[in-house]
Amino acid sequence: MSADWFRRRFLPGGPLPAPGPPRPRPRPRCSPVPYRRPRFLRGSSSSPSAADASRRPDARPVRSPARGRALPWNAGYAEIINAEKSEFNEDQAACGKLCIRRYEFGVEEDQEWLTLCPEEFLTGHYWALFDGHGGPAAAILAANTLHSCLRRQLEAVVEGMVATQPPMHLSGHCVCPSDPQFVEEKGIRAEDLVIGALESAFQECDEVIGRELEASGQAGGCTALVAMSLQGKLYVANAGDSRAILVRRNEVRPLSSEFTPETERQRIQQLAFVYPELLAGEFTRLEFPRRLKGDDLGQKVLFRDHHMSGWSYKCVEKSDLKYPLIHGQGRQARLLGTLAVSRGLGDHQLRVLDTNIQLKPFLLSVPQVTVLDVDQLEPQEDDLVVMATDGLWDVLSNEQVARLVRSFLPGNQEDPHSQHQGRSSH
Amino acid sequence: MSADWFRRRFLPGGPLPAPGPPRPRPRPRCSPVPYRRPRFLRGSSSSPSAADASRRPDARPVRSPARGRALPWNAGYAEIINAEKSEFNEDQAACGKLCIRRYEFGVEEDQEWLTLCPEEFLTGHYWALFDGHGGPAAAILAANTLHSCLRRQLEAVVEGMVATQPPMHLSGHCVCPSDPQFVEEKGIRAEDLVIGALESAFQECDEVIGRELEASGQAGGCTALVAMSLQGKLYVANAGDSRAILVRRNEVRPLSSEFTPETERQRIQQLAFVYPELLAGEFTRLEFPRRLKGDDLGQKVLFRDHHMSGWSYKCVEKSDLKYPLIHGQGRQARLLGTLAVSRGLGDHQLRVLDTNIQLKPFLLSVPQVTVLDVDQLEPQEDDLVVMATDGLWDVLSNEQVARLVRSFLPGNQEDPHSQHQGRSSH
Repeated sequence: MSADWFRRRFLPGGPLPAPGPPRPRPRPRCSPVPYRRPRFLRGSSSSPSAADASRRPDARPVRSPARGRALPWNAGYAEIINAEKSEFNEDQAACGKLCIRRYEFGVEEDQEWLTLCPEEFLTGHYWALFDGHGGPAAAILAANTLHSCLRRQLEAVVEGMVATQPPMHLSGHCVCPSDPQFVEEKGIRAEDLVIGALESAFQECDEVIGRELEASGQAGGCTALVAMSLQGKLYVANAGDSRAILVRRNEVRPLSSEFTPETERQRIQQLAFVYPELLAGEFTRLEFPRRLKGDDLGQKVLFRDHHMSGWSYKCVEKSDLKYPLIHGQGRQARLLGTLAVSRGLGDHQLRVLDTNIQLKPFLLSVPQVTVLDVDQLEPQEDDLVVMATDGLWDVLSNEQVARLVRSFLPGNQEDPHSQHQGRSSH
Repeated sequence: MSADWFRRRFLPGGPLPAPGPPRPRPRPRCSPVPYRRPRFLRGSSSSPSAADASRRPDARPVRSPARGRALPWNAGYAEIINAEKSEFNEDQAACGKLCIRRYEFGVEEDQEWLTLCPEEFLTGHYWALFDGHGGPAAAILAANTLHSCLRRQLEAVVEGMVATQPPMHLSGHCVCPSDPQFVEEKGIRAEDLVIGALESAFQECDEVIGRELEASGQAGGCTALVAMSLQGKLYVANAGDSRAILVRRNEVRPLSSEFTPETERQRIQQLAFVYPELLAGEFTRLEFPRRLKGDDLGQKVLFRDHHMSGWSYKCVEKSDLKYPLIHGQGRQARLLGTLAVSRGLGDHQLRVLDTNIQLKPFLLSVPQVTVLDVDQLEPQEDDLVVMATDGLWDVLSNEQVARLVRSFLPGNQEDPHSQHQGRSSH
């Protein structure tokens, strides 16, 4: 990949392209995953806002879609050029209209998914953020692929989704007369099929990324946060530490929760308990307030194991001096000393530095899905959803973000350059 | 065990003992776990209330502590004689003052735990309900044992509990100058040690029950719901499908959640995914709306696996026709066709009927603990906690129970015979 090209184009201090038609990018020769920014940023400019620049000489440029390129559902988008933690801006995004066809239409695979497809049966909208790590490849693949996986998974169950109640048999054929009653008693609704499709799509996309990365000898992983509007509902699927919130005039409502080594401690410790060989004798499954050392040997020290929500004391043995499976707290918490998230896509080859210990077994690609019934919500003109990666939530609380976006709103209805990510209002 | 004695004493229609001093009970010769009712019911009578008897000829007798025998913290207690589902009233209960001593006092094991011990260092109160199944043995053992396990576990960490912040080392010795800072950053509070002690006590009690049942050739299991007041906080620990709620003048707040094959489906399916041999080829891990049969073969049918919150369709194969790991819904849901709860104590020998398939691996003895800061709550005179087994919650909602107990309150302050279980107010 051409780091020079990336630096010239995106990093502060380098020459910034003037607004206008996109210039042809040099493509690296051997990579099947060329580095790129989200498609809807083509032709946009990036610069620090005047106010920021006067206040803070180190203000980083903000990029948003070019004027005149509106995103669906009045969505806005902004990204901040990376803080040089990594070579590339590893965050990626995707957004588009989602067209779900009925299988029997027999239409061939539609490559131009982002445009209207005439055979559409159900349509929705899709917004996604991918926060990459260890290189941009997984995030780029996810931005290119996840919506196709999702469309395929939805199309596989669309007959059930459009029924008043999903039939026990997809064919609609009733084997037992009381089949509808069984489905009713389980409380299975059409939205459960959409949740299932989102879960399957994330897993399918993860498999695709695994194959592509292996084939191309590339590496990396990413978190994934998806919002999808379909049949009057907003589905938010999250795998990682990004976050979506709903901002209304008198309410701020989280639409996702974060998955990190801290929030998923018990699941991760439980796995190491079941499969101790995953730690290869190099790590301890137990959590302590800090890494233990020789002086702690024989002392009774605070600890937690997989089955514990509370804390207790244990007498320190030699094996407790190993590096902890989960170490550090808050933003510093790391899984196997390596990764700050516990769900996401990719990372199939990721290993602890200088060892053969894999991280993938501890990572889940399946998202948690929350459903917002937009019709029941009695939506107002200025309701909006904010989706952002941890970079925003590390420095601003939900309430602070809500105050900020509310302050932009009144004079900002026509401006797609508003500086909040994935904003959607209706 | 003497079923005749039990029938004479407790079942409707048999002669009921008049209120007075307890009569000596015939003890079965070879059982180390003689059947008994909670200690504080000694000397009490049981009879259907006059109102109930006039309305419903099948009204079952209610038993509560004898007049003049008040329970701590103004607690009330009532139990309903069993509905002949099982030979015995398998529910048990315990209640008492909890005296936690410092180890260095060197006092020998205090057998009379339920009375005030002069060496007490910290005191609290303890209420517990145990809903037995497969015989009363586990519930009786739990009622006899769990408080001792809890006292022991609390005494093991009491030095940490009484510190402003639990020290990293129980000795108080600081190995690193920044140890308090590490503990602070992890957010470890004294109440986390109490939660840890409750978790450990449940596990210890489960091991004791396992040993005792094996030694005596008895069987059975029980759920466990514990409320403990200590240092201005109320801890509620729950393993099973009992429930505790807080009833206030303008609020009803659940203090526990239920653990059943339905609520713990993903954990249970995940275990069967990791250890398929636990199902011995007799069960399918997958969930379907009903048990599948030959006619479903080859059809696409609704299903859920361990990683799914939503539902999807799968093509039915022969292995899907096996009996489901979790089957039925609501009150009918069963684990391996056998058990309606997924957490509790005992059941070490429980096997699926006519097979060698064990249930214990799927059961957790560790409770979920919730903490109520009583001081922050600004408690009112008529606040109370209701603890009850599923028998109550199957027929009455939280709100209905709250309305009922509120209606008893005003004229009932002095009457320990009030018909709600484990009521505590202050």
